Amino acid sequence: MLPYSKKGLLNNIIQVNTRNPRTGIFDYQRPEISGEEIAASCQLLLQGQKKWHANGFAYRSEILQKWKVVILVHQKDLLDALITDTGRVWETKLEIELLINSIDRWCKLAGEFFVPIPEKTTQIPFIRLQQDWVPYELIGVISPWNFPLLLSLIDTLPALLAGAAVIVKPSEVTPRFIDVMNRTIAEVPELKEVLAYVPGDGNTGAALLEHCRLICFTGSTATGRKVYEAAARNMIPVFLELGGKDPAIVLPSANLEQAAASIFWGSTANAGQSCLSIERVYAHSSIVPSLVEKLKARADQLLLNAADIHQGEMGPIIFEKQVHIINDHLQDALSKGAQLITGSTECENIGGGFYCRPSVLTGVTHDMKIMQEETFGPIIPVMGFETTSEAIALANDSMYGLSGAVFAGTTEEAMEVGMHITGGAISINDAALTAIMHEGEKSSFKLSGIGGTRMGASALRRFLRQKVFIIKNGTAVSPWTVQLHRNT
Amino acid sequence: MLPYSKKGLLNNIIQVNTRNPRTGIFDYQRPEISGEEIAASCQLLLQGQKKWHANGFAYRSEILQKWKVVILVHQKDLLDALITDTGRVWETKLEIELLINSIDRWCKLAGEFFVPIPEKTTQIPFIRLQQDWVPYELIGVISPWNFPLLLSLIDTLPALLAGAAVIVKPSEVTPRFIDVMNRTIAEVPELKEVLAYVPGDGNTGAALLEHCRLICFTGSTATGRKVYEAAARNMIPVFLELGGKDPAIVLPSANLEQAAASIFWGSTANAGQSCLSIERVYAHSSIVPSLVEKLKARADQLLLNAADIHQGEMGPIIFEKQVHIINDHLQDALSKGAQLITGSTECENIGGGFYCRPSVLTGVTHDMKIMQEETFGPIIPVMGFETTSEAIALANDSMYGLSGAVFAGTTEEAMEVGMHITGGAISINDAALTAIMHEGEKSSFKLSGIGGTRMGASALRRFLRQKVFIIKNGTAVSPWTVQLHRNT
Repeated sequence: MLPYSKKGLLNNIIQVNTRNPRTGIFDYQRPEISGEEIAASCQLLLQGQKKWHANGFAYRSEILQKWKVVILVHQKDLLDALITDTGRVWETKLEIELLINSIDRWCKLAGEFFVPIPEKTTQIPFIRLQQDWVPYELIGVISPWNFPLLLSLIDTLPALLAGAAVIVKPSEVTPRFIDVMNRTIAEVPELKEVLAYVPGDGNTGAALLEHCRLICFTGSTATGRKVYEAAARNMIPVFLELGGKDPAIVLPSANLEQAAASIFWGSTANAGQSCLSIERVYAHSSIVPSLVEKLKARADQLLLNAADIHQGEMGPIIFEKQVHIINDHLQDALSKGAQLITGSTECENIGGGFYCRPSVLTGVTHDMKIMQEETFGPIIPVMGFETTSEAIALANDSMYGLSGAVFAGTTEEAMEVGMHITGGAISINDAALTAIMHEGEKSSFKLSGIGGTRMGASALRRFLRQKVFIIKNGTAVSPWTVQLHRNT
Repeated sequence: MLPYSKKGLLNNIIQVNTRNPRTGIFDYQRPEISGEEIAASCQLLLQGQKKWHANGFAYRSEILQKWKVVILVHQKDLLDALITDTGRVWETKLEIELLINSIDRWCKLAGEFFVPIPEKTTQIPFIRLQQDWVPYELIGVISPWNFPLLLSLIDTLPALLAGAAVIVKPSEVTPRFIDVMNRTIAEVPELKEVLAYVPGDGNTGAALLEHCRLICFTGSTATGRKVYEAAARNMIPVFLELGGKDPAIVLPSANLEQAAASIFWGSTANAGQSCLSIERVYAHSSIVPSLVEKLKARADQLLLNAADIHQGEMGPIIFEKQVHIINDHLQDALSKGAQLITGSTECENIGGGFYCRPSVLTGVTHDMKIMQEETFGPIIPVMGFETTSEAIALANDSMYGLSGAVFAGTTEEAMEVGMHITGGAISINDAALTAIMHEGEKSSFKLSGIGGTRMGASALRRFLRQKVFIIKNGTAVSPWTVQLHRNT
């Protein structure tokens, strides 16, 4: 198992070597936490949750605002750790910026959500109802390596505001920022009682499944299924946000320059390492050559950041195992007749890091992995279609149903097609907008996920149970207590 | 396995003998449907669902109202079949009455739910959002034997109104009414395309898990866990409504006559065969003797319907296996020192049916099964407490968290206690009100269930996915498409 599990005993803590995505060197010792420590941490959080819930939404909102200030103070440390974890700068800055915005957004949404619920009368004159929300006590968040900061908090913030305590286990691939997060949390004692980040791999994740009352998992469909099965054994609810193979459809009426710009951004941001990346493009056959040319022009301008992290736009593939998947999909496509218009035939090792250039493919078919499985790389396969219904059928020929995009001359024309695409979020005349716009409420269809929207005010519901007091007027006599015993 | 699986080949259909709960005779041949037939039926329903969804809510509501009329026409046949299935009359009439009401209630709630969603502006000036609801295509409903009609439709009606097709598998213990249901469905051709009842046991349930897009299960926690694990393997969402061990707390200030009447009803209706039955009573020690006396008085008046189904109030235990559980719980309690104030020391065989008299127990403790496990019989164990916090702790000392009841001199005093009881529905100065009042929205806590409320308008959300169109103004240029490629 070396070098992934090169373990040593240091200060009584087992440490695990972690790879640097730019150098390939295992240069970071990730502490490994025992199952007992996880159990103890969960107990403390469960204890802290009582006050957190009892103190109400305004208190929780205030504490998160305090934390926001602390995060801003530690911004440089956080940025540095995340840049080392991921090997890229621009997306890391975006993560921090979006996090700060999302603390504000969630506090606002929760304020709108937690309004007093008036008592309700019923059809039975002497019975009235009083509704209440009760948070799950402890949420376990298992988050991935592609946007380590943002995706560790996308469920955590609404869960905290709902009144739950949260224990977060980010991916073992990107563990360096965990320490910084815990330092910021420690500076807000009220938060420290209900929020902890823990390092660890699947074993730690399994421990969370034992001790938490609800699990949020973001990651691959394969691991998601394991998490779901473990949740079922433990009889706890689970929310899964899994893979995607998002299609973009370009109709002949579309503004091709804009479509190319949007698709290129949607396919290559974060080197394609996003669940919501555009991974398949279907363009009307009349515009394929022109679209491909425009995509190629953009691809050829883009520079890797390999030599200098502050120069160039595209970082390395963060997770070494993903390199093999990308290579496999490229090889499979090329061997089955796809043409590489520009880009990499396989990821390139530059100074120890693995890089994939933005790659445009034509001549692709649906028997290729590149059109079926999640690639998670900056690959843009373009396929032609003749009729709109063919385009829709191709877009829906997928085990995934996360999101998608449609480009057309008018909003109406694009919506008409988007209506038929199976997915939770359809960008109209732009691509991958859920990366930027977190206000729309969206489910994950098919194998892309399980459970309600993680965006918008409704996302709070996922962490809350409903409780109703069914109140009988004290002096009334219920007819059914009589009825039962005078069988008519 | 005889006589449960006494199989024979008749008209090419394997048939399974089904026990009559009043006579103990296996007098009904339940047809057994093959996995292939289930698959074919699911395919047809999936086909029919497209039009059902496309035609909109008003159409669906209209068809269900048509069906209501047909059910009323076939009321007598339905009643007869259900009475044979369950061996009791009053609760069967109640089931049909509640069903008719609930068709009207769901049509009304769905009308309130499916209002047009206005477009929303966002923080980004040139982006707006349009939300939509998309039903899961095919819901599998696996329902229990205690209220065969009502619980086969409690999820089915909102699922249909949401726009889904539904396949229902009622318990193999009570299969006689299935045929009548399918006859009523056949008289409404538009409904027949999207709704089917199928007979069968766990194998048929497993087939539903293979072919449906979402499963609703009502039944025991043990079976619920199996269903959950199968849903996880199939990567489909599941809603579980499972066992309960509902507590009632009686404070010294309560009106004891009313409390006794309500608790007695809540414990003994349907011979205790309800998940929401009161199965534990905690009364302040000062009022235990008086409460027990009142419960005993009511118990002693109640008559079994063994001799004549139209005489007496209490029917047989429907499911033979449940008889063994009830006997086991009674034996366990008595052997550990509980006193039987009135009732049965074990279920009595009268003419082949098994009957349990309403039984009041004192001297019970929390190491007895009767205070921990779901009994599903008309047993009322009464335990004294000294302080309110002790009562709350006892009520919450359970793996279940379905519902509960609190009795006190004022609503406020009862609410103050109910606030601390873990459960989705707390009846205030009455018991088991969720049996009658389906408007309150309630979650199932702990091992009592997984998923959102099955009552109230929010229940519709369970069958719907959210889809958002994120619409960019066609002429705007997104800053991020530029930003990515001019790394700052």
